[in-house]
Parts: sequence; C-alpha cells; structure tokens
Amino acid sequence: MVPVSRVSGRALGSLLPDLRRLPGPVYAALGDAIVSLVLDGRIAPEARLPSERELADQLAISRATVTAAYDALRGQGFLASRTGAGSFVTVPPDARPRVSTLRWAPATPQHADEIDLTCAALPAPPGVLPNAIARAVEQLPVLAAGSGYDPMGLGPLRAAVAERYTTRGVATHADQILITNGSLHAFDLLLRLLVGPGDRVLTELPTYPGALDALRGNGARIVPVPLAPEGGWQVGQIQATLRQTSPRLAYLIPDYHNPTGALVHDQDRRDVLRAARQAGTTVIVDESFVELGYGSSARPAAALDGTVVSIGSLSKPVWGGLRLGWVRGSADLVRRLAVQRAATDVAGSALDQLVGTVLFAELDAITSRRRAELQPRRDALISALHTHLPQWQLQVPEGGLSVWVELDAPQCTPLTQVAAQHGVTLVPGSRFGVDGTLERFLRLPFALPTERLEEAVRRIAAAWQRLDHSGAPMRQLVVA
Amino acid sequence: MVPVSRVSGRALGSLLPDLRRLPGPVYAALGDAIVSLVLDGRIAPEARLPSERELADQLAISRATVTAAYDALRGQGFLASRTGAGSFVTVPPDARPRVSTLRWAPATPQHADEIDLTCAALPAPPGVLPNAIARAVEQLPVLAAGSGYDPMGLGPLRAAVAERYTTRGVATHADQILITNGSLHAFDLLLRLLVGPGDRVLTELPTYPGALDALRGNGARIVPVPLAPEGGWQVGQIQATLRQTSPRLAYLIPDYHNPTGALVHDQDRRDVLRAARQAGTTVIVDESFVELGYGSSARPAAALDGTVVSIGSLSKPVWGGLRLGWVRGSADLVRRLAVQRAATDVAGSALDQLVGTVLFAELDAITSRRRAELQPRRDALISALHTHLPQWQLQVPEGGLSVWVELDAPQCTPLTQVAAQHGVTLVPGSRFGVDGTLERFLRLPFALPTERLEEAVRRIAAAWQRLDHSGAPMRQLVVA
Repeated sequence: MVPVSRVSGRALGSLLPDLRRLPGPVYAALGDAIVSLVLDGRIAPEARLPSERELADQLAISRATVTAAYDALRGQGFLASRTGAGSFVTVPPDARPRVSTLRWAPATPQHADEIDLTCAALPAPPGVLPNAIARAVEQLPVLAAGSGYDPMGLGPLRAAVAERYTTRGVATHADQILITNGSLHAFDLLLRLLVGPGDRVLTELPTYPGALDALRGNGARIVPVPLAPEGGWQVGQIQATLRQTSPRLAYLIPDYHNPTGALVHDQDRRDVLRAARQAGTTVIVDESFVELGYGSSARPAAALDGTVVSIGSLSKPVWGGLRLGWVRGSADLVRRLAVQRAATDVAGSALDQLVGTVLFAELDAITSRRRAELQPRRDALISALHTHLPQWQLQVPEGGLSVWVELDAPQCTPLTQVAAQHGVTLVPGSRFGVDGTLERFLRLPFALPTERLEEAVRRIAAAWQRLDHSGAPMRQLVVA
Repeated sequence: MVPVSRVSGRALGSLLPDLRRLPGPVYAALGDAIVSLVLDGRIAPEARLPSERELADQLAISRATVTAAYDALRGQGFLASRTGAGSFVTVPPDARPRVSTLRWAPATPQHADEIDLTCAALPAPPGVLPNAIARAVEQLPVLAAGSGYDPMGLGPLRAAVAERYTTRGVATHADQILITNGSLHAFDLLLRLLVGPGDRVLTELPTYPGALDALRGNGARIVPVPLAPEGGWQVGQIQATLRQTSPRLAYLIPDYHNPTGALVHDQDRRDVLRAARQAGTTVIVDESFVELGYGSSARPAAALDGTVVSIGSLSKPVWGGLRLGWVRGSADLVRRLAVQRAATDVAGSALDQLVGTVLFAELDAITSRRRAELQPRRDALISALHTHLPQWQLQVPEGGLSVWVELDAPQCTPLTQVAAQHGVTLVPGSRFGVDGTLERFLRLPFALPTERLEEAVRRIAAAWQRLDHSGAPMRQLVVA
C-alpha cells in the first residue's frame, strides 16, 4: 500500500483537542483522538501521518508519548507502517459498520406509513411533463423515420445545453456537448475512457455515493480529501494532495455539494483549478445541483479554467425518470466519449431527448418554482432538527436537496436500523465516505413536503433516543 | 501469447483446396491457402495449427513441404511459434485493412442522394408510437410522483417481458428480468459483472461488432470460432474450443445471427449448450432478432438449458430510438446486475418503459407486419445481387435484417471507399471479425424499401467494377 496523501504535523495539530484536558494518559487520548478523526472523515483513510518526531514537536509532548500512541493505533489496526514509507491510516474491518457499504437494493418497506429519506430527488414538477411530451411527439416523425440511434445525442438538445452554458458565462458550442443518461452515466463514461485500474482520482470526503461506486467499478484508486468542518473545500489540503499524488482525475462538486449543500466561492475554485493544472490532473466538475441554489452562486468552474470537464443533468431540476444528462468538454473529448458510448449502450432515448429539448426552453421557470418550493422545506427541516435534536450540528446548505448533519455520537448505522422500525428509511453517512468512516454523519434530503419532513424528524429523534450513546465509541469494537 | 483454440490436421485438411492442382510449388500453395483461410475468417486468429508431422500425414505430403510452408508463413508474419506451445496464427499489422476497425463515427454524407447501408435497423413502425405514447402518458402520474429511478426496470414491463418468454416455452418470472437500454447495454452490464481483464469469451466469427467493441472495452480476450461456410455453427469446433479453452463466457446468436441471418437448429443448440456446461462456461444468447424470422424457428436456448442467460430488445422488432432491452437470467443474477446498473447509469427512461409496456401488448401484430414488409425486401436484395453481381455468393438468411455476402476478392475495405463515391455507405466485413480478417465479406441490410435496395446494388456493382481484382490479394501487402 502506497500512502496517497499526507497530513502534516501542523494540520493534525489543528484537528486535535487539547490532550491534557482529556482523562487518562496523554498517549491514549492522542490515539483515541486520531481514531475519531479517521472515523469521522477528518483524516482520509490511507493518508500518511506526520513522523513521530514532527508530531511531538508540533504538540510539545515527548516523542515517547507519540510512539506509544502510534503503537496503540498499530495494535488496534488503525495504523500501518512500512520502512521508508512512514505510517498511514487504515480502517480495520471490524471497525466498519456492517451494512454501510450496501449499494442500491430494492426497498422493502417495514412500516405502513414509511417516510423514505434515502434519495435526494424530487417528483416531476406538476403539469409540466404531459405538455412537454405532447410537443415532443410533434417532433417525433422526423426521428422515427431513421434508426433512432445517435451516440452523441440529439442536435437540438445539444444546442440547448450549449446555449445554457453560454448564458452562464461559459461560451460553448454544441460540438462540446455529449448527451448521456444522467450525470452518473456521464461520469462513468469519462472514467471508462480516462481511468485505468489503479489510477488515482481525487474526491471530496464526503461525496456522492454513486460516484464512489462508479470509481470502484472502474478500478480507480480513490484519494479522498476531507471537507472543512464548516463546509466547503480545505484548499490547502486539496492543493497538497494534488501536488503529492498527481491524480489522473479530480471529481469535485463545488456547486451545492452533495451531500453538504456547500458552495465553493470563486477564489477557492481558482486556487484549486490552478493546482490541478500544475499537477496534470483533469478536473471533472459535477453540476447536478447547480440550478438549485437558495442565495449566493459562483462562477462556473469551466469559466475559470477552459480545461475543466463539466457534467450535469435534468434529474435534479426536473425529474430523474427522464434519463438526461450531459458532458461539456472539448469537441475531441466528446467525440471519443461518443465512440465509447456507442460500444456500451449505443444511444439515449429519442423521446426523452425530444422532451428535454422542449423543457430547456422552460427551464428558468421550472427551476424558479423548484427553488421557491424547496427553500421553505430546507428551513422547516432545519427548524425541526433544532427543536427535536438540538445536540446535532449542521451547516445551512446554500443549495441542493439535503442537509448534512453531525450526530452527537458515531452511531449512524444503528440509527438507520432503529429508524426503519420507526417508519423512516435513512442512508447512513458512511455511504458518502470510504472504508466505513463518517458514522457520525447523516444526509437528510428535504425533497418531501414540510409536514412529512417534520414527522420524519420526530421519528428519527424517537429512534435516536432508543439508542445507548453512553459509551461504545466505534473503536471498542476493535479493542473488545 | 497462449493459443486460444486448436485446428486439427483433419479440420485444416477439410478447409484446404487440392494443393497439387494449384500453380507453383506445393509449399507455396499451402502457405497461400492458409493465409486466405485466416483472412477470410475460416481459421480464427490465434488458433493453433496442427504440428508439421500431423498436417503432413493428413495431406499425404512430405514433412519438409509443410516445414517450408510454415517457414514462409512465419517469414510473412502469419505464424508465431513458441517452443512447446506449437505454431499459431497471427495477422501482421500490414495485412489489416486500415479503416476496418473504425467504430462508430458521425456520418458525413459524400453524396447528395446517399444510401446508408451501415445499420441493420428499421424506422419506427408507422402510426404505432403516437398512440402508444398517449397511453403511456396516462400511466405517467403514478411514476412522476416518485423519484423516477428504478435500476431493475418498471414492474409491468418486466412482467410483460417475462410473459413473452413464458409464451415462447421458457417459464419466466418477472424477478428474472432486468430492463436495460437495449441488448448491447445488457451485454455490457453482464461483461462488467462477470468478466475480468484477460478472461476468455467465445464468440462466433463473424459476429455483431457492438459485442466485439464491448468485449474489447471490458478487457476480455476474444476467442472467435468461425461459422460454417454454409452458415450456422460448426458444432464440433465450438465444442473443441470450449473444451480446450474453458472460456468464462460464450456470446452466441443462434436466432437469426447478425450478420449472417442463420438459424441454429435444436440439436446443435443442445450439443453446444451441453459442452458449455461441461466446460463451466456461462452462455449468453443474444435474441435481438428472434422476432424477425421468415420461416423456420427453433426452441429458445433458455428452454433447452435453464442456465443460459438471454438478452433481447425492442430495437429490431420495434425501434432503436426506444432504448429498451433486457436480460433474462436467475433472480440472483438480475439483482446483482441491478446493483451494477445503479452504479453506472442508475436506471432507464421511465417514459420509454411505459411506452414499451404498451407495445408488448401489440407486439405480435407489430412483428407480423414487420416480417411481411421485410421478406420481400430480403428477396429483392438477393435478386438484385444475383443480377448485378452474380460472382458474389450468399446464403439466404432465415431471419434478421441482413445478407452476408462473400465477394470474389478480399477487397471489402477499398470497395467501401469507392462505394461512398457512388453514393452508398457500407461497413466492411472486417468490422464483424477480429484482427482485420473477413475482408472478403460484406453485410448488406435489407431495412430499406425495395427500390432503394436495388439502386444500392447497382451502385455497389459499379463501384466493384472500378476496382482492380486481377492480382493484389491481401498478403501482397506483406511480401511486397
């Protein structure tokens, strides 16, 4: 195992609590604190820790204390060392929640009046589809006279997507657009074309679980960089990881990040994109949620750096049942992706693409109604959380469809199990991370009507109360 | 390089002409004949030839003559030998037509009145789609109230596909059906789930180019087995290859094979499926064309062997612009494929699936009109070929959408280039094979109206006349 990124003594020092104020010997407190940072996703799995000497200097404690802490971590399976390569973080299998790595599985409701909070997606906007379909059917005869196959996607839809980029300040020609079956399909095609087995791909931590699955499915080596505790990028850490690991790709969600809803502002974008260019890393920016912002926005990443590859979709602003996404890249990349696509699923649905072309003309009206509907739901969810679970922490998301909540104990997987009995289906936070970390976190979508969200929070609070939070931090699974 | 299949002395003997009746020394005639067999796809690239002694005994010629022939082949790059592993067939890069491995590329017509014969696919059946869409829209509200994502596919459509299998004599439950975006997508999902890099997959030679692309894209090692010159399987050779190479998968098209239109009869199916079971090989049967037979039919492979995985689609019987295909397998396989699918493009188009559910109820009427329309086109194409290119040979296809034609010279790639100037777009036969072989063959679809097919054949004949067929067999590219 090669360490994929490095945590400096100073960075680790800034993450650690004051060890002398914790009960027990300092070496044990240091070990426990590092375990918590790993399991909470503050330090990425496989990151290299500072040397014992560097950390001792930083914390102004004896080197023997750090040695004892690292030895304890090694004994518990949280640290692996190799001569010359340093010590790097691992997560022992026993410390991973057992159900957290489940991918998609058919839902089997356990409760008659179940509230499903697994999916950050909306129903189709009322009344929009039948009209759009009727207008699409008028356009159908020309297409229906041919084979119906076009791996690039329908010309008028490509032009509509390109025009929307141009309007957003990213001059784009239709040749630069490939139509896909949604943004995950766009990402998967890019991975199949650009990534070989073992190639490194930098991601945020947490990030969109579908992207993690696609990365694993393509044999990529995931290099996760933790987000800042207050949301958004830790620019220095992303830059350092780009420099140290020169990943093939970086997959980033600066526009209303999934799951945190954070918006990355222009200067941070510029700084990270510059570092990526210097590292020879191709940046893929997922703009799935860009139309769902509730206040501030930022310049599109592709406007700041022409080499950025953008992916997007109508699934979040309109409806996921329409399988319509896209890639915006160079005309050459788009051609190569189309060849790739022709050899996998040939082409997208002609009918969906005709409907999508109609919808693009109305997209501003649709998304403006969406935002007006969603912002009160976001506020109601947050207000219910403050009322019923005041010990949980969160940042108000600037966009998107979900709130990322930090629980007061790393017990998201057992919560998910108990909540199901109370009639709420949840996805544990570890689904948004790697190696079973992020057990302290939970993504709560606000796609449902206000009263359902309030009822969901009441049920979650009841489930949380049934769990014993007294002791049992995750690592006791290991030491016991 | 490990040889992937073996050609016995007897098998090679049966393919060779009477060498003593050919001009020049016997060793040269033997070498030339073997080169032709390789380039025409009668011997698969990478197949192991019989030992010199075995072939000499079989042909009743001296071992020195065989040695001289093999030495000449080695010198020309058509044979590679490794101590202990024998001599196996290769195709030197110079002998491969330069444009034949092109995958899909956007068409740029060179001729105002171009006739496109690249695609074996039909326009949508007249009048069918608007009604089906109108009825689908009535079903939409229930789906539109949810996220629209279902990686398994819509329940009623899965039930309709299962019912059609049951009607065909393959008892099937909806749990055994996964809905995909067409049959190539079904195949690609199966490859992603079941095949690792370097795993062997047996295919017919020729076969569907999309399948070859998907196999290459998934890093599979293609093990091609030539079809019989008169069409259909060479059962003994498939059995021997299964026994000798134990491939992970076999991809077969027994129901109106693409491109030859051949139908494999029940006993041959039974014999090959038994050999596959004994070799531990999972058989994937592509039934894309099963609804387009013009006379005889055979028992579905899955009715003869319950472990067969079937894939199919509405693209050929209805329309490719609807992205609707499926896998029929065990409920467990289907679940695992759905997990795979959720991590790649999430789900299929809800609207297409609703339309497909409506169309399944009318499928018999639609396909019966299709067959009535297509059979005269097939006959007109064949008749025009007999008139204008009587020196070309073909077998009358029992189903499907194309005729596989054997030219009187291995010049399909130059023909494709000249034909484009005459207003016909063709795909060279080598697109249906591996390593640039099959230059002597051409797939001609009969999806167009009769008069267009007749005009296409007149243009192809004019183009063929412009080529010099006098000498210039392919291998002169090598020896020159």
